[in-house]
Amino acid sequence: PDWQIVEVEGIPHLTRTYKFPDFQTALNFTNRVGEIAEAEGHHPALLTEWGKVKVSWWTHAISGLHKNDFIMAAKTDEIAAQFT
Amino acid sequence: PDWQIVEVEGIPHLTRTYKFPDFQTALNFTNRVGEIAEAEGHHPALLTEWGKVKVSWWTHAISGLHKNDFIMAAKTDEIAAQFT
Repeated sequence: PDWQIVEVEGIPHLTRTYKFPDFQTALNFTNRVGEIAEAEGHHPALLTEWGKVKVSWWTHAISGLHKNDFIMAAKTDEIAAQFT
Repeated sequence: PDWQIVEVEGIPHLTRTYKFPDFQTALNFTNRVGEIAEAEGHHPALLTEWGKVKVSWWTHAISGLHKNDFIMAAKTDEIAAQFT
């Protein structure tokens, strides 16, 4: 599935789950997303498990979604494309 | 709070949230826990966010908690102690 908007405690999050062949590859992806998060000063929630990572973007300051979240989602997809 | 047993879709998980001063430190902790997970061949769910990481251990094969999960929880605490 592609990106979905999911409400968590009333706050919309832009969320997508990516599949990977094992834990280490999933963690490598998490680190790459962490790099762009640090570079942009905008931080997601990254749920890393064996074979998958769930990425959630939202804007804390507005308790919602901002244009920037969608930009980060697109950048996340670009990173994921490098893993396939 | 210390470790708690939380049911997720009927499966008990051993769960603890650790606080950190920023995103990068949280991600560094996630990577250290990932290292022991790979070393032991036993993998948690790691929810990394700005300033915190939620670690969940459970044993997929038995859909529950095994002695090994508690051992991994203790090892996770040892790693966390190195971050304070």
